[in-house]
Amino acid sequence: MPLNSMQDLMIHKLQDIYDAENQALQAYPQLAEAVSSPELKQGFQQHVEQTQGQVQRLEQLFEQLGKKPGGQTCHAMKGLIQEGQKIVKEGGAPEVLDAAIIAAAQAIEHYEIAGYGTARTLAQQAGMTEAAQLLEQTLEEEKNMDSRLTQLAEGNVNQKAQQAGQ
Amino acid sequence: MPLNSMQDLMIHKLQDIYDAENQALQAYPQLAEAVSSPELKQGFQQHVEQTQGQVQRLEQLFEQLGKKPGGQTCHAMKGLIQEGQKIVKEGGAPEVLDAAIIAAAQAIEHYEIAGYGTARTLAQQAGMTEAAQLLEQTLEEEKNMDSRLTQLAEGNVNQKAQQAGQ
Repeated sequence: MPLNSMQDLMIHKLQDIYDAENQALQAYPQLAEAVSSPELKQGFQQHVEQTQGQVQRLEQLFEQLGKKPGGQTCHAMKGLIQEGQKIVKEGGAPEVLDAAIIAAAQAIEHYEIAGYGTARTLAQQAGMTEAAQLLEQTLEEEKNMDSRLTQLAEGNVNQKAQQAGQ
Repeated sequence: MPLNSMQDLMIHKLQDIYDAENQALQAYPQLAEAVSSPELKQGFQQHVEQTQGQVQRLEQLFEQLGKKPGGQTCHAMKGLIQEGQKIVKEGGAPEVLDAAIIAAAQAIEHYEIAGYGTARTLAQQAGMTEAAQLLEQTLEEEKNMDSRLTQLAEGNVNQKAQQAGQ
């Protein structure tokens, strides 16, 4: 679909995020299963629930725009998830794997932060205040998830992983 | 390669970023060619030069670690670049394409921000002060590139694209 207007671009971006989130919904439970830190496991499980809410918000936006969600594949998220799966497959010391999986999840979160940031700005500039607010809400959730993962990494997880390697 | 220590993880992460940067070095000139805004074109061209410096910094780090760079494929960056190429292929109004390509480049930058953020934290925690500083330097450059792209999008580029759609 050629991008002839900013409306086209916003829909393109929302479709991309929609597919990305649905892929993430499949991937996060796998990551939750692969980690050994209970806090991290819980963090991933809670993020699955949060992601379900984010998908619903996107569906709400599509309805407002009179468009059907779906039909686009997000290759970026495919690659990001593949990175996470590669780590799980490689194996290693459980504590080090936890740290590696956090890094993979943060890359996923950063993709979503970039995507929602763009979509929110596009909605703002189109004067779609309500849509911009919905997107901003998810953007904040993704940023919080990223910060939570940083805290987990800098705190307990990396310390244990350091010890594992000694 | 199984991840048995934090040193393994740091090398894994650096190899991932090294391949990602080398892929970006091929992709940015294509993006520069596809955009019509002169400031944006210049921004991408300057970022190619900056990326060359970042690759050299990584090579310096590998030397310090006594490792050879290369041999790992970053699937995430592959997917991210594919997203950018898909937009160029879809075509559309030049001003809207500029806005879309900015979004694709910001997704690339965010992947690098996440990657360097992880690598810098790993280096810090391993007491590798000099390596951490080198990684921090690149991290700041990537964050600045992301901010510059936001400024270009929120300023001139999106305004022109709004007009194109009317």
